Amino acid sequence: MSDSPDASSRRPQVVILGAGFGGLTAAKTLRHAPVDVTLLDRHNYHLFQPLLYQVATAGLSPAQIASPIRRIVSRQKNVAVLMDKVVDIDRSRNEVVTATRRVPFDYLIVATGARHAYFGNDQWEEFAPGLKKIDDATEIRRRILLAFEQAEATEDETERRHLLTFVVVGGGPTGVEMAGSIAELAHRTVRRDFRRIDSTQSRIILIEAGSRILASFPERLSRSATKQLARLGVTTMTGAAVTGCDQNGVSLKDGSRIASATIVWAAGVVASPAARWLKAECDRAGRVLVDAKLHPPGADNIFVIGDTAAVTDAKGVVVPGIAPAAKQMGRYAALAIMAKLDHRAADPFAYRNYGNLATIGRKSAVADFGGFGLSGFVAWVIWCFAHIWFLIGFRNRAIVFLDWVVAYFSFERGARLITGDENRQSASTSGPERSKS
Amino acid sequence: MSDSPDASSRRPQVVILGAGFGGLTAAKTLRHAPVDVTLLDRHNYHLFQPLLYQVATAGLSPAQIASPIRRIVSRQKNVAVLMDKVVDIDRSRNEVVTATRRVPFDYLIVATGARHAYFGNDQWEEFAPGLKKIDDATEIRRRILLAFEQAEATEDETERRHLLTFVVVGGGPTGVEMAGSIAELAHRTVRRDFRRIDSTQSRIILIEAGSRILASFPERLSRSATKQLARLGVTTMTGAAVTGCDQNGVSLKDGSRIASATIVWAAGVVASPAARWLKAECDRAGRVLVDAKLHPPGADNIFVIGDTAAVTDAKGVVVPGIAPAAKQMGRYAALAIMAKLDHRAADPFAYRNYGNLATIGRKSAVADFGGFGLSGFVAWVIWCFAHIWFLIGFRNRAIVFLDWVVAYFSFERGARLITGDENRQSASTSGPERSKS
Repeated sequence: MSDSPDASSRRPQVVILGAGFGGLTAAKTLRHAPVDVTLLDRHNYHLFQPLLYQVATAGLSPAQIASPIRRIVSRQKNVAVLMDKVVDIDRSRNEVVTATRRVPFDYLIVATGARHAYFGNDQWEEFAPGLKKIDDATEIRRRILLAFEQAEATEDETERRHLLTFVVVGGGPTGVEMAGSIAELAHRTVRRDFRRIDSTQSRIILIEAGSRILASFPERLSRSATKQLARLGVTTMTGAAVTGCDQNGVSLKDGSRIASATIVWAAGVVASPAARWLKAECDRAGRVLVDAKLHPPGADNIFVIGDTAAVTDAKGVVVPGIAPAAKQMGRYAALAIMAKLDHRAADPFAYRNYGNLATIGRKSAVADFGGFGLSGFVAWVIWCFAHIWFLIGFRNRAIVFLDWVVAYFSFERGARLITGDENRQSASTSGPERSKS
Repeated sequence: MSDSPDASSRRPQVVILGAGFGGLTAAKTLRHAPVDVTLLDRHNYHLFQPLLYQVATAGLSPAQIASPIRRIVSRQKNVAVLMDKVVDIDRSRNEVVTATRRVPFDYLIVATGARHAYFGNDQWEEFAPGLKKIDDATEIRRRILLAFEQAEATEDETERRHLLTFVVVGGGPTGVEMAGSIAELAHRTVRRDFRRIDSTQSRIILIEAGSRILASFPERLSRSATKQLARLGVTTMTGAAVTGCDQNGVSLKDGSRIASATIVWAAGVVASPAARWLKAECDRAGRVLVDAKLHPPGADNIFVIGDTAAVTDAKGVVVPGIAPAAKQMGRYAALAIMAKLDHRAADPFAYRNYGNLATIGRKSAVADFGGFGLSGFVAWVIWCFAHIWFLIGFRNRAIVFLDWVVAYFSFERGARLITGDENRQSASTSGPERSKS
């Protein structure tokens, strides 16, 4: 280990993979530690993922929920940022491997997050994109806005209905947020903007395979969320498993079919390939099975945190895949490294549950604080403040706040842009049902 | 014509091609006219093109300089917006032809703008993208920011110099703005963000084939602009014609070579294919030659305006290709249509020159008001107010203003995101000089 006498001339090297909530918190916690930190990410920005659905529904711009990693740590002199993509981890030599380099480490924190998953049906992705990256969000925004444009342009009544039907697959927090936000876009924001279609006739359908939406919340709040969604114009279908997605819609297990030009996938995530890199065991969602100190078996200089890890904490609590949990694990890993440098033993990780929030729309949300739950306007106000508070950087905070104030009073959305590859655009509209005629 | 007795049951159809400054002004001017207006654009937004360079250099987000066309005209009930792409104009039947429909018109206003041009060297575009569309701007932003990332990552000193050399081809207002803005990004914004490179060592080279930059301004202001650019760290090369662009840099007519990983093309524009659609004569830049009433020969129900038209006005003034001129022509065409409906004759178009502005950087600009010219801070303040004032929509105005205030005091830029197609990204870095190793 680097703190042995023969390595005293050189500071321990801490490599952090991923600048999400977990990785960034770890880097910041190490700011006064006598280590050199390398923060490696494939993107040049930290993304505030909980608000990504707002980009997908034209409420916010990408730059409002993303900050350059270099700016965030610019004053922290013991951190170097590297924009690169991990392809492997060499455990025998303690090196991270990318396409073009090897980055040696004494301590490694793996915080590479998760991606949406199609459970063996990757061919669905083309028709039902998921929502994990900025480019996902701008692609979904393009599809939603283009559907309204094409509905306005078509002469065919059947095609128009098809274009004005939006399906969200998956009734977790992301699916609920997406469905509510598409409903508000259709029923409020754009309703005066078209001359031939009535956008308030749009159908927004939220499909959940399980028996209720927001399964991680108490049942009472699931019922409340369903009611709040209905008020916004969202039809919730539970017990409905998707068996197929194509350019014309989705097929369900009961043999029925929903014709829709725009499908959003929010039904599942799979962890990044960290288990493969580490040759470690993982659960069904690809998350590395770690011990109570967040180490994969046999590697007490490696930590796996956030959505990449399957963690049951010291008290037997299964840690959820949410931002506050990732931040707690990032802080834990950093403190554990500092303890090791001081030859102290670290306590096992203990998750503190500060509550669980999901927004549904303007003035609607649910909040679960263990002992008690809230729904409706009060939950929504709590959600707003929690999210603005955690947005990184004062500047983003102020601008997002201003945007929301304007949006709240005007129902307007500032980022209604159809952008992106024009070839892709024409490709996606080349199907018989998506052509403009 | 539609105002003849047999068509009295139906309102005259005005079709406007392009929702830029000219087309949008025409549509708004017709708001109380007894006509039905169809505003057709290939995008769903109006773009405030004069600030596009700020998107390309990470100062502003796309949504801050673009407003949905439907929102802009949402209360104007005689306007229908159609998102579609013109492929031809059928003059014998008075119809606009798109891939999937024919749109009949009684009056037509062609305001489809211009694109950057490579004068017969379209193969240069891949290496030296131009700046006309939002996707152009985000692509240039991606290249500039990625060059810094790759320079930080490389071990090779020659490659690092190559990555930290930025070339802007063309010394018109766009080229000057781009060069100044890249210089500020390199020398100010990111200078504390890297650990291995010194971004202030970046070289920014502005190449102009003519004898001076900003040739449309008085010579004194050209000299002042060159000095202001030098203070920002831009090297201006005049009398330097580009004979080749490739992934490693540009070649000049004198046989010399500038090694650079990032080239921006601002050397010329060509009008949209309107002349071809109309089977009308055009000048070398593809602009339709119109008469003093903005008609192409033999078509007094068709107007060609803005950057699409080559106009010498009633007083013999050659009308420049700038936003205020396009707006004046849009208003003129709309008023001329209203005059025709009233059986009045319209006066020929007379251009009013309110001045010419070009910004160079923070606190630097030049302004030409015919009789007198300004440069430096005062010109820059005028430039700021003129641009914020003309930004469409109060919301954009307020947010852009806030962004600029923050940027002015902090040198920070809010939109430093490397986004876009990841395949394209790896493709553009696959050359020997752009690889990350």
